[in-house]
Amino acid sequence: MEKTGNFPEFYLSTLSPKREIERRIKSFQTVLEDNHLEAALIYQDVDLFYLTGTMQQAVLLVPVQNRPLLLVKKELSRARVESPLSKIEALPSLAKLGAAINHYGYRIPDRFGMELDVLPFNTYRFFKDQLQFKKAVDVSPYIRNLRAVKSEFEIDLMRKAGDMGRRLYQNVPALLKEGMTEMELAGRMIRKALSLGDQNILRSRGFNSSAFNWHVISGRSGTYQSRNDAPFAGLGLSPAFPMGASLKPIKQGEPVLIDFGNCYNGYQVDQTRMFSLGQPSKEYLNAYGSLKEIEGQILEHLRPGNSAESIYRLALKTAKKLGYEDSFLGPRGQRVKFVAHGVGLEIDEPPFLAQGHTYPLKEGMTLALELKIVLEKAAIGFENTVVILKDGVEKLTTADEDFIFV
Amino acid sequence: MEKTGNFPEFYLSTLSPKREIERRIKSFQTVLEDNHLEAALIYQDVDLFYLTGTMQQAVLLVPVQNRPLLLVKKELSRARVESPLSKIEALPSLAKLGAAINHYGYRIPDRFGMELDVLPFNTYRFFKDQLQFKKAVDVSPYIRNLRAVKSEFEIDLMRKAGDMGRRLYQNVPALLKEGMTEMELAGRMIRKALSLGDQNILRSRGFNSSAFNWHVISGRSGTYQSRNDAPFAGLGLSPAFPMGASLKPIKQGEPVLIDFGNCYNGYQVDQTRMFSLGQPSKEYLNAYGSLKEIEGQILEHLRPGNSAESIYRLALKTAKKLGYEDSFLGPRGQRVKFVAHGVGLEIDEPPFLAQGHTYPLKEGMTLALELKIVLEKAAIGFENTVVILKDGVEKLTTADEDFIFV
Repeated sequence: MEKTGNFPEFYLSTLSPKREIERRIKSFQTVLEDNHLEAALIYQDVDLFYLTGTMQQAVLLVPVQNRPLLLVKKELSRARVESPLSKIEALPSLAKLGAAINHYGYRIPDRFGMELDVLPFNTYRFFKDQLQFKKAVDVSPYIRNLRAVKSEFEIDLMRKAGDMGRRLYQNVPALLKEGMTEMELAGRMIRKALSLGDQNILRSRGFNSSAFNWHVISGRSGTYQSRNDAPFAGLGLSPAFPMGASLKPIKQGEPVLIDFGNCYNGYQVDQTRMFSLGQPSKEYLNAYGSLKEIEGQILEHLRPGNSAESIYRLALKTAKKLGYEDSFLGPRGQRVKFVAHGVGLEIDEPPFLAQGHTYPLKEGMTLALELKIVLEKAAIGFENTVVILKDGVEKLTTADEDFIFV
Repeated sequence: MEKTGNFPEFYLSTLSPKREIERRIKSFQTVLEDNHLEAALIYQDVDLFYLTGTMQQAVLLVPVQNRPLLLVKKELSRARVESPLSKIEALPSLAKLGAAINHYGYRIPDRFGMELDVLPFNTYRFFKDQLQFKKAVDVSPYIRNLRAVKSEFEIDLMRKAGDMGRRLYQNVPALLKEGMTEMELAGRMIRKALSLGDQNILRSRGFNSSAFNWHVISGRSGTYQSRNDAPFAGLGLSPAFPMGASLKPIKQGEPVLIDFGNCYNGYQVDQTRMFSLGQPSKEYLNAYGSLKEIEGQILEHLRPGNSAESIYRLALKTAKKLGYEDSFLGPRGQRVKFVAHGVGLEIDEPPFLAQGHTYPLKEGMTLALELKIVLEKAAIGFENTVVILKDGVEKLTTADEDFIFV
């Protein structure tokens, strides 16, 4: 295997299989065809990784038929190791993109697919000048909908991320000490996660959106709102990152909410569990029990064919019945309008169990069920990442589901 | 102070002073005037933080005269605590942006300033439909050039980030053990950094660009190239994040390069030091000594008025004289074309000591001097963040500069 160069076995074992990449390309080509597009250009790193297996500095041209062309600015030899695509060539500079595409016998159609939700305006304009297409069509919704349905290969990577999370949460009782700050506990958890093989990245697609793993939220911290679309945000360290763990010390009896995402070979799972030093009050335990009940209801209805929105409504109804109408998914007037988000290579991908999302769910979709209650003096959360099966649901996050008293 | 709500003192102590924000707004308005622009819209989180002191979900309208208008979608009350601006109002939804601007008596000019280097195409188009301007002008270069010159307030935050780095690197000898993986050491360092108050974020502006703090690169790992514009990349854990620390175990005698950025209240410094278990070979020590000599040369010429590019050329010349023509800034054929980048709220900001950057340096500019040599079996690095003074240079990163043998 001369092609694999000097890469060690632990790295080579993470490469995407050829069959997986071929399947994704084929599916994307089918969507292009269905939408009467002759070709699309993929440039965003996560989409590029999904369709090629590599995230090198490169541009991917996908014609509706014919082999895709991956033009690599940096690092060509590494892209050839990482991606099983058959047509991977050098791109001397982005300014030669049009020439390179012509050189390899590909053409740019008038209506051209691009990732218009993430591509910066200047980059779009640069591509337009280079490639002289007439009209750009946003293909991001197509890619995101393909990505929403996971293959067995992808689900297995998410299972591994989930197992990492299970082992991580097992360590919380040993890591949590009275008086330590939220950020100190977060640091201990990150260190443990890295020693378990976690990639320490969470990716979100939205502009200005930050995905991060240090949501360690104790007591009053759970009542602070901020920029993120979440039931609560935490304090954070400063307005330069106004969310997540803070310098607040963790005290006896306070609920400690830990919402820690794990990532294995690019695939993420999201999970929330509750802890406290000593026994927390009944109010908190009851709220936690109610979130489990709401999850139970959701899991019964999370089936292929059911509408995403209907399950969101069901969750709201159950929360109301249980007495949490004004605290479930955020305090009165600040409630978020979703109860679950898709998760995989990005943490904000479809499907969303949310208002207005009336599409049917499919087998293989993966979701993080973000069950949160914001009470007067603390937030309570319970969250698992699940995959929809033909006739049921599998939990990919498997940490102990008890409210743990340390 | 009713306005500060329930925010604890440790959070309130991090707010940007009114005088600082007023100075930044005034400078930006002067640049708008110089460029014959009547107004600009700021939306990217870091620019928003720079000009307002808050990073809440908001849109900032800066007219060339008159007070700026900050329209906040989420969270208004928090934005009012965090920002000293006087005109902060609610934005019910982005779809009402045009109406809100009119409501508060502001107008959108035909030529309108926007951050076209980062604004996604769809977002740009949304703003254009909403606001009905004729032509968008890219104001990002103006903001980035303002941001390149730091105030005393900003330099002091960077000094604090530097002091955190000093205390962090002091701990490396106690954290580094034979046989641990690069990622394990990275995790121990991140944990320590968080306990020192580090924000655990590094921000880069470039599309597809990832800033991260786990560059722990031992031995052969320093010879791998990847997507990033750097002399070397490291292996990383998988093609889903093909750079930085990996699962490679750290062995006796190998050079261990640690390039760890620290962040305090949004302000970053960048620093690289070398470690090894036992004595490293003379080849590595010589390379390290040469990098210090190159830094010495650069520091003597880093003065207001000198051209950025001239110092880049000087560094190349010195490296050649010392025998590193084919290894300084990367191996033959893969050398990067810069020797330093500006640093502050983002890790890829002007000025750049780089080919083609012929502008003069100014007092108050802050730079990370990325001195790296890539040898056949390892990379050697030495890096400090410095601020240009009227007649000299101050190092903001202050970790011990010896090659440390553990």
